[in-house]
Amino acid sequence: MTATLDEVRAMDEADPLASFRDRFVLPDETIYLDGNSLGVLPKQAIARTGGTVRHEWGHSLIRSWNEHGWIDAPQRIGARIAALIGAKPHEVIVADSVSVNLFKLILAAAPLSPDRHELLTEAGNFHTDLHIASGAVELVPGMRLRIEPREALDAALGAETNLLLLTHVHFKAGFRFDMAEVTARAKAAGAITLWDLSHSAGAVPLHLNRDGAELAVGCGYKYLNGGPGAPAFLYVAEHLQERLVSPIRGWMGHAAPFAFTDDYVPAPGIMRFLAGTPPILSLAALEAGVESFAGADMDAVWTKSVALFDLFADLVGERCAGLGLECISPRHPARRGSHISYRHPHAFEICQALIADGVIGDFRAPDVIRFGLTPLYLRYEDVWQAVDRLAAILATESWRDPRFAIRGKVT
Amino acid sequence: MTATLDEVRAMDEADPLASFRDRFVLPDETIYLDGNSLGVLPKQAIARTGGTVRHEWGHSLIRSWNEHGWIDAPQRIGARIAALIGAKPHEVIVADSVSVNLFKLILAAAPLSPDRHELLTEAGNFHTDLHIASGAVELVPGMRLRIEPREALDAALGAETNLLLLTHVHFKAGFRFDMAEVTARAKAAGAITLWDLSHSAGAVPLHLNRDGAELAVGCGYKYLNGGPGAPAFLYVAEHLQERLVSPIRGWMGHAAPFAFTDDYVPAPGIMRFLAGTPPILSLAALEAGVESFAGADMDAVWTKSVALFDLFADLVGERCAGLGLECISPRHPARRGSHISYRHPHAFEICQALIADGVIGDFRAPDVIRFGLTPLYLRYEDVWQAVDRLAAILATESWRDPRFAIRGKVT
Repeated sequence: MTATLDEVRAMDEADPLASFRDRFVLPDETIYLDGNSLGVLPKQAIARTGGTVRHEWGHSLIRSWNEHGWIDAPQRIGARIAALIGAKPHEVIVADSVSVNLFKLILAAAPLSPDRHELLTEAGNFHTDLHIASGAVELVPGMRLRIEPREALDAALGAETNLLLLTHVHFKAGFRFDMAEVTARAKAAGAITLWDLSHSAGAVPLHLNRDGAELAVGCGYKYLNGGPGAPAFLYVAEHLQERLVSPIRGWMGHAAPFAFTDDYVPAPGIMRFLAGTPPILSLAALEAGVESFAGADMDAVWTKSVALFDLFADLVGERCAGLGLECISPRHPARRGSHISYRHPHAFEICQALIADGVIGDFRAPDVIRFGLTPLYLRYEDVWQAVDRLAAILATESWRDPRFAIRGKVT
Repeated sequence: MTATLDEVRAMDEADPLASFRDRFVLPDETIYLDGNSLGVLPKQAIARTGGTVRHEWGHSLIRSWNEHGWIDAPQRIGARIAALIGAKPHEVIVADSVSVNLFKLILAAAPLSPDRHELLTEAGNFHTDLHIASGAVELVPGMRLRIEPREALDAALGAETNLLLLTHVHFKAGFRFDMAEVTARAKAAGAITLWDLSHSAGAVPLHLNRDGAELAVGCGYKYLNGGPGAPAFLYVAEHLQERLVSPIRGWMGHAAPFAFTDDYVPAPGIMRFLAGTPPILSLAALEAGVESFAGADMDAVWTKSVALFDLFADLVGERCAGLGLECISPRHPARRGSHISYRHPHAFEICQALIADGVIGDFRAPDVIRFGLTPLYLRYEDVWQAVDRLAAILATESWRDPRFAIRGKVT
C-alpha cells in the first residue's frame, strides 16, 4: 500500500512549509486543486486591496501616485517576482496581460535578426501564445509562423529561426522543457528564445539568468496568487534591454511620462516595456500574492511539489487501477510542472462529479482533468482525500449522473 | 459682483444633481478639482471590491468566472458605458488601457484603406496617442504619421488619409472638436476617424451613433470614477465590427476561448477586441464607478458642468484680475470639456500652494494649471472657495514659498 491516511498526516506534520497555509483563505469543505488556474486569496490581499481602495484612492487620491508608490508598483512587484525566477530585480516588470506581453516581446525582438523569418513554436502550445504569434508575424514583412510538434522542434531550429516561442511548462500535461539546454541550442542556431512561464513561476525551479534566458513572460494569477486576471509580468535580460523597443509605445514606458512631449523616447531599461496606466487595485492584490512567498525556500516548494505529485500518482495508481484513468504528465520531476493530468473519455463528467464532491480540479478539452499542486497551501492529506473521492466516483460510476454532463461556459 | 457666497449656496440648494454627491467618498478638508485625472471613490466601490476579493475570489474561486459573471464583465460594463456615450450596448467593451486600445484599433483599421498611407493627428495631442501612433505606423508598410497643428488638420485631410486620430476634448486646454462635423468631413475625404474620449466620457455630451463615429477609445479612471488605472474601453461601430481583426489576438477575443484550438477565429462582434484575461478586481471598481451615474440625466450633468465652468471663470475674472492668470480654455460651451485651464509663468508653484491650502488641481508642463469640474460630486460653493484661495495665493504671492518649488515625480 502506498500510504495510509495516518502516514499522510505524519507527512503534513513534518512539512517545513506547513505554516504557509495559514497565510491564505481556503474555502470551507473544499479541496482546491486549481491553483494552477487561479491561485487562492492571500489573507494579506484583503487588507492590501481594502487599504488601496479606502485609504489610497478614497483619501489620498491623485497624490497616491507618489505618496503610496503607485508609480513604482510595476517595478517594485517585478523585482519581487525576479527573486522567485532567478532574475535580476531590474529585469522584470509587471504589465498588461500575458497576451499583450507576448505581443510586445515578439515584435520588439524580431528586428534583431532581420534575415531570419521564422517564429518557431510548438503545436498545441497554449492557444493564446499561438494566436498572439500568428497576429504578430503578420506585422513583420517576410515573417511566418512555424508550428511543429515538440519532437520536431530541434530539427526545425535553424538559419531561418528568428524567435523560438515555448511555454516552459505545458498547460495540459505539464511537460517541462529544459530551459538551459533549449535556450543554448536555440542560441547556437542564432535564435532567441521567448519563454512563457505562466505555469512555472512560483511553482517549479527557475533560474533565468543561470540558464541563459533572454526573454520571458508570465502570469500573475496562477501560482503567484495575484487574484483573478492579475496583471502579468515580463522579463528582458539586461544585455537586451536597450536593444529592444516596445511596439506599443504607451506613456508609462516613456523616458519622461510627465514631460508631455510629442517625440517618443523609450525609458531606460525594463520600464520601456510598460504601456498604459497600470490597474492599481489589481496590482495591490498581486503584490500581496507575490509577498505570500516571503520566507519560502523555492527549493523546499519544489521538493514538496514533487512529493505531492508522487503521492497523487501513486495513490491513483493503486486505488484507481483499471478504472480508465491515464496519467499523461511526465513522471520524471525534471520534466514536469506542478500539476498532474489524467486522460479519461469522460473527463468532463468526472471533473463535475469531483466538484460536486468538494474537489476542485479542472477540465481541459477534449478529455483531460488537471489537478494543481500548490505547496504553499496544500496538505498531503488533501491529496489523499481527493484521490479517495476520485476513486469512489470512478468505482461507483457516479459521474454518470446526468447533471454532470451539462457544460457551462467556462469549464 | 459675479456671485456672493450666499448666492452660490443657493445654487447648490437648487442643484438637481446635489444628491449624487452622497454616492462618493470625498476627502476631508479638501476641494478636489482633479476628477479629470483620477475620479473620486464611489462608496459602492468599497463594498463591490471587498465582495469581489473576499467572497468571489476567496470563497467561490475559479467558479466565479461563471457564478459571479467575471467572464461577462467586459461586455456588461461596456454596455453601461455605451449608454453614457450614445452607442449601442454591443458596440463598447472594456479592455486593457487606452494606449493598448489605440494600438489595436489603429492596426485593425489600417488595412481597410490599403491605398491610403497617412495616420493624421494633431500636434500636441495627448502624448500617449502620438507615441502609440508612431509605433503603430511603423508596423504598416508605407504608412506614416502626419502631425499637424489643429488649424491645419482640415487642409491635411485628403486622399492619403487612412485614419484621423483625434482626442475629442484636449487634455490641456480642454478644446473640444465637433464630433459630427469632423467625422463627416473625414468620411467625405474617405478616412475613418478614431476618437480618444478620455476627457469626454462621463463629462461632455456624447452621441457616438448620431454623430457617425466609427471608432473610439476612452478612459475608465477619470470622469467614470473607475479607480486608479481602471481598465479602458473601446467602441467599434456595428457596421465595422466584422471587418476588423485585432492585431493582438488574445484568447479572450477568440470565438471559443475554451476550445483550445491552434487556429485563431475571432469572436463575433465587439468581443474580438479583448486580448488577455481582464483584471477582475479593477473591473469591479470600474463597474461601481460607471454605476455611480445611474439615474443621472447626462444633459443635466453637462448643464451643471457649464455652470461650474462659468462660475469659475467669472470669479477668477473678477478676483484674480491683473494677477497673471490667462484662461486658455475655450469660452463657448460647445467647444470645451469639463475642466478649466489657466496659464501662468509660475503655474507649478501656484498649483503646489493650492494643494497645501486644500485645493487639488493639477499642473501640466510647462505652465498650465487645470481644474476638473465634476458635476456629480462638486458643489458651486467648492468653486467659490477654490477661487477664493487661488485669489489669496496670487494676491499675497504666497506661492513664492520655496517649498512650493520642489518638483516631485508626478505632478
